[in-house]
Amino acid sequence: MKRIAIQGAVGSFHDIAAHQYFNNEQIQLICCSTFEQVFENIKRDPTVIGMLAIENTIAGSLLHNYELLRDSSTTIVGEHKLHIEHSICCLPEDSWDTVREVHSHPVALMQCRGFLANHPALKAVEAEDTAGAAELIARQQCRGWAAICNAAAAKLYGMKILQESIEDNKHNFTRFLVVSNPNKADFLRPLETVNKASLVFSLPHEEGSLSQVLSILYFYKINLTKIQSLPIIGHEWEYMFYVDVTFNNLTRYRQSIDAIMPLTKELKVLGEYKDDGKQTDIQYQAC
Amino acid sequence: MKRIAIQGAVGSFHDIAAHQYFNNEQIQLICCSTFEQVFENIKRDPTVIGMLAIENTIAGSLLHNYELLRDSSTTIVGEHKLHIEHSICCLPEDSWDTVREVHSHPVALMQCRGFLANHPALKAVEAEDTAGAAELIARQQCRGWAAICNAAAAKLYGMKILQESIEDNKHNFTRFLVVSNPNKADFLRPLETVNKASLVFSLPHEEGSLSQVLSILYFYKINLTKIQSLPIIGHEWEYMFYVDVTFNNLTRYRQSIDAIMPLTKELKVLGEYKDDGKQTDIQYQAC
Repeated sequence: MKRIAIQGAVGSFHDIAAHQYFNNEQIQLICCSTFEQVFENIKRDPTVIGMLAIENTIAGSLLHNYELLRDSSTTIVGEHKLHIEHSICCLPEDSWDTVREVHSHPVALMQCRGFLANHPALKAVEAEDTAGAAELIARQQCRGWAAICNAAAAKLYGMKILQESIEDNKHNFTRFLVVSNPNKADFLRPLETVNKASLVFSLPHEEGSLSQVLSILYFYKINLTKIQSLPIIGHEWEYMFYVDVTFNNLTRYRQSIDAIMPLTKELKVLGEYKDDGKQTDIQYQAC
Repeated sequence: MKRIAIQGAVGSFHDIAAHQYFNNEQIQLICCSTFEQVFENIKRDPTVIGMLAIENTIAGSLLHNYELLRDSSTTIVGEHKLHIEHSICCLPEDSWDTVREVHSHPVALMQCRGFLANHPALKAVEAEDTAGAAELIARQQCRGWAAICNAAAAKLYGMKILQESIEDNKHNFTRFLVVSNPNKADFLRPLETVNKASLVFSLPHEEGSLSQVLSILYFYKINLTKIQSLPIIGHEWEYMFYVDVTFNNLTRYRQSIDAIMPLTKELKVLGEYKDDGKQTDIQYQAC
């Protein structure tokens, strides 16, 4: 049985993503309250696999997770894209008239900004997790409190759903990464299935250095699917570049990495994995 | 006298940035509760100037502001970089022992994540604005509530500072953009001072199209200072590219835009302005 460390409680979007990714496999969740703890679990026990959100179509990239990933000694072995839908729920005894506070993860609150603006009487309170907020309200019987989470988590904790699909934008997708100890990578994703990689590097302060790197990738028929320059903390307005690439030929890809290496600084391959072309809707089965 | 629309209250980081940028000029603030209202003010009265945060070294880019900027008919006429420091403050009658909730803007809460993790008894509540949270607590005499804002705002509203510099990372800088009606741009920033521009475009689904665009900019001696691919909402995993460039020769820059135009889709110049090389510390004078 695989053990998967996630940030969040049972019923969270991470839980759903983990069950969908490891479809038809027995998995056991290790629920962590922070992403740091996810990486600590993998470090302590190399057989543990991590699952972490990395980018959302509305909220953008989770910069802190990029940092943790770069500084960890794990490697990306897979990705999963999940359609995100939020519901507002409360204790069965509560209603629209009695709810005063709404608790959820900051990113979920942000994704429901329009809904919250239309309900100015609701105080938005930050929680560690979406499903965790529902679990806490149910367990501690917090009258007058609502949670924003997915409908499956609301039902799991016996909460009453006041309204479904309260997210501002229906095209709300989150991309999750599956990470592991590098020694376990070949077991988790056979090399012959690999057609995508995530890289991070910085560049010397020379004009055109990024265009040179991208030109070389192009010459090697490596396709760019994402690029983001992020400030290097402690070096204001110097940037690291996070790049996702896809390819048909693993050897050509590896040669392209050798070719750009001398032109970059601190190039690190964050992982090589199989592209998840599709996005999956939530279909939750209790674990 | 210039009228500047900002998101936030008197004493907010936007207020400080506006006073520093328009140093030695008489300005009058129009305090808005949302960034949407900032753009509405400019639309209604073309003499109004807007000031909005666009990127922070810790929190990353404010994606929503990029969107508003792209969809508005304003143009960027300047930028200002400000060193961000957060304090926690409360009513003079309150203390560490009596404070139960801490109110602030979600981004400020995120920038003080380490501090909040060390104070698990404090409930983090989202507010529209940092200084606005302090103002509300002072005006409504909310006992047991603290705000996270800059020290100058805390003093302005007669609050007691419990602790200064509670931000996780001391290298915390925010970049603000100054935006106006395009007809006022030449008045606000003489063309001869322009050495930076912000662009947005999407690209056809052809391999190497980004590398071609960047190569052309390089051939024209245009320097890239920022690049970010953002998902196009409604077209999952298709991307817009936001690019900042600097240059010494305005004519060459304009020629480079003409040169990349046929290779891009929906290219829009978001503004041409003077590069703010330095970062400024907070030195607040009450308006």
